[in-house]
Amino acid sequence: MIQYNKVTPAVVEALKHIVGDKYVITDEEKMLPYSHDEVTDSRYHHMPEVVVLPRTAQEIAEIVKLANRELIPIVPRGAGTGLACGAVPVHGGIVLSLERMNSILELNTDSLYMVVEPGIRTDDVQNAAREAGLFYAGDPCSGDSCFIGGNVATNAGGNRAVKYGTTRDQVYAIEVVTPRGDIVTLGGRLEKVTTGYRLDQLIIGSEGTLGIITKITLKLMPLPQHVVDLLAVFPDIDTAIGLVPKLIKAGITPTCVEFMDNITIRSVERFLNEKLPHSENGHYVIVQVEGENEDDLDNKSVLLDELCTEHGAMSVLVADPKKIWRARKSFAEAVRHESLIQAKEDIVVPVDQIPAMMREIAVLSEKYGLATRTASHAGDGNIHLNILKGDMPDGEWDAKLDAFQHELYKCVYRLGGKLSGEHGIGYKRKQLMQEFTDPVELEMMRAIKKALDPNLILNPGKIFDV
Amino acid sequence: MIQYNKVTPAVVEALKHIVGDKYVITDEEKMLPYSHDEVTDSRYHHMPEVVVLPRTAQEIAEIVKLANRELIPIVPRGAGTGLACGAVPVHGGIVLSLERMNSILELNTDSLYMVVEPGIRTDDVQNAAREAGLFYAGDPCSGDSCFIGGNVATNAGGNRAVKYGTTRDQVYAIEVVTPRGDIVTLGGRLEKVTTGYRLDQLIIGSEGTLGIITKITLKLMPLPQHVVDLLAVFPDIDTAIGLVPKLIKAGITPTCVEFMDNITIRSVERFLNEKLPHSENGHYVIVQVEGENEDDLDNKSVLLDELCTEHGAMSVLVADPKKIWRARKSFAEAVRHESLIQAKEDIVVPVDQIPAMMREIAVLSEKYGLATRTASHAGDGNIHLNILKGDMPDGEWDAKLDAFQHELYKCVYRLGGKLSGEHGIGYKRKQLMQEFTDPVELEMMRAIKKALDPNLILNPGKIFDV
Repeated sequence: MIQYNKVTPAVVEALKHIVGDKYVITDEEKMLPYSHDEVTDSRYHHMPEVVVLPRTAQEIAEIVKLANRELIPIVPRGAGTGLACGAVPVHGGIVLSLERMNSILELNTDSLYMVVEPGIRTDDVQNAAREAGLFYAGDPCSGDSCFIGGNVATNAGGNRAVKYGTTRDQVYAIEVVTPRGDIVTLGGRLEKVTTGYRLDQLIIGSEGTLGIITKITLKLMPLPQHVVDLLAVFPDIDTAIGLVPKLIKAGITPTCVEFMDNITIRSVERFLNEKLPHSENGHYVIVQVEGENEDDLDNKSVLLDELCTEHGAMSVLVADPKKIWRARKSFAEAVRHESLIQAKEDIVVPVDQIPAMMREIAVLSEKYGLATRTASHAGDGNIHLNILKGDMPDGEWDAKLDAFQHELYKCVYRLGGKLSGEHGIGYKRKQLMQEFTDPVELEMMRAIKKALDPNLILNPGKIFDV
Repeated sequence: MIQYNKVTPAVVEALKHIVGDKYVITDEEKMLPYSHDEVTDSRYHHMPEVVVLPRTAQEIAEIVKLANRELIPIVPRGAGTGLACGAVPVHGGIVLSLERMNSILELNTDSLYMVVEPGIRTDDVQNAAREAGLFYAGDPCSGDSCFIGGNVATNAGGNRAVKYGTTRDQVYAIEVVTPRGDIVTLGGRLEKVTTGYRLDQLIIGSEGTLGIITKITLKLMPLPQHVVDLLAVFPDIDTAIGLVPKLIKAGITPTCVEFMDNITIRSVERFLNEKLPHSENGHYVIVQVEGENEDDLDNKSVLLDELCTEHGAMSVLVADPKKIWRARKSFAEAVRHESLIQAKEDIVVPVDQIPAMMREIAVLSEKYGLATRTASHAGDGNIHLNILKGDMPDGEWDAKLDAFQHELYKCVYRLGGKLSGEHGIGYKRKQLMQEFTDPVELEMMRAIKKALDPNLILNPGKIFDV
């Protein structure tokens, strides 16, 4: 285990010299927001020793070189909307916030790409594309607050992964400050490439442990013109979730297939104070499809309606997209309203294993007497399972949660799944990562980390211990 | 530079003990086919000391452990259809051929995947999928002879990358024997995952330098039902190639967009001894599109016809798919017929830079008096430029080719391109790789190689020197 040094007044001075006095924060109160992400359990919070807000890759490179010389850890931070404590400075040191690097550098409507800095909000990326008549396919549910740089660093997923893949599939190239403080561009605006190792894809999703992303070239595409959102309401979870593999196989290529169980629908209804259809007993499958033209869209809608009805839907409605997506995206907030402290599991399994997974969740929920709320990106096998602490005493909660999680992930891995579909491992899932990952695979990850970051400067204590 | 040991009789005995006497080859004549790939220049051939044909991952793991103990290099080999000398044992040692591992282990028509061993031919993968009413999207031009394992190891591209991506996009998971001789499964049958580093995607395309692929889970999809191949004939190269970026932008999402210049068309015509349309003066753009239904396909065909005509096509024909694709896929053989020795460049540039690249090629071809033949996966920016030696003396050829390549790749990198779109770097492009890659990026690759393969056992001397 590496012994880091403390941030001394001399280090603070050196940081001020690099970025300017104004952009170095040491005031406790002002540093407080940088001590946590969206994980509400304060046991996962940790204060930085200093927060620095650089404006350029060059400044970041200097900071990284300084940190290597002084043996001080750096934790890169986007908007702090993570759910795995990936941006929490568990070893103290420097929090490096990308918030000032928030420009769109280029939007090319002929060649369909956009070059952005990491600190721009994902919604702003989507909106800029849309205003140019184009489409950015990445769509994490936290798009109104998260940064695109964080999306890339964690390979954020979201709703449209079924058709368009996750953030890594939207990226042509990244500029990165390496753990040694070099600036390098990885990847390229290329549709096909086999020129050495795919380092861009290694850095993407590495949660700030292998590099600090300072510039991103994103793919754009023509804006889909013909889109419909259908809401299929089912009388029970099994029937609802059993539809999903069949949808995928039918060759419709939906953009999104989302699932919300009844108890979650009612939670959202209370939170929004707004009546949702069939909320008394329905479970939702929300399907978004795009058509080549209106006829094609009509054909697909009819096919979907038939499929859903055949598989036991009580009702299939054309949904108001604003309303239905607000309901879906309110899931996290609504559940937080019910219980401030909760475990947010981010299970991913093969799509055909979702029904088995849902049954296991019901069994475990019952067995441990823990209330759960579930919303899933069902089309891609990603289940958000929120386990609520409510007013359970800390000791009981810890013990029960631990036992619940262990049984849960044994099942996940038995079904061919993994720990996290889109939230990442960060600090929070590190123990589970150690436990459930093949030791050979974990050792390969460690070897790569040590090779690229020999002083273990970048975001230490995340994903795995070295 | 590591000093490898020679293969001793004791090592040969140990190999026989692992795989059985029958599957260890030391006879010079029988080893000859394993001394080269498709590169015809004998200066790129090198004899192995022994060839071994294992049947299982366990056997391979034992061989790798033996090689580590004895410090003997291992060169994994698929069908030997490479064009970059990736499978040539430039340091001697053991050639490990995957040819006996050629089974389909599972074809799941409900969940749309296929598990295969690496030594099965790509065409056989495609055919097995098709017979089950499904579709495997990978489609390298050498599909009738190459192995799927080689496709994965080199991230083979091919014609359909425009719509479906390259081989790495078709892979759910790989089983790998690591350079230390462990067996590990990387990736998973998951549509979305953020659980540590993406090691599967690091190994894919690493040309056998980071692991030996022993099992592959491939994605399948519903078989496209409505497909048309259009042949647009243009009076000059500039107009033909200028169409391509416009096609992509029109939002048609073609499956393939291929380009053949007139001189290449005539070369193929002579080779096949078969009249091709407008071969007297036409340059071809071949476009394949898939439709959701016949109406959609008709709409797209009309739109394509309009686009091509508007951009100067002399003629737009619905092509006989068998005939047109045989013509396209005969490119390599036809050109070899013209000149046994040739440099096969595998340039990739951003799609919008293809016209600039083609102009540069014409200029250089003229400047150096070197005959060139060009066929391109134009839709993805991948240009196959074959430079013909003909009967030029060796010394003159080497000097001219060297100068030509240096000017060529300076232009490629200036345009945002890279050395290889799909053939890989192997041994043949290693010097150019060293010269044109950012030293920081190259040092990261080296660090990863050394971290995962500390004895530098696996396919040494490829991609870069350590």
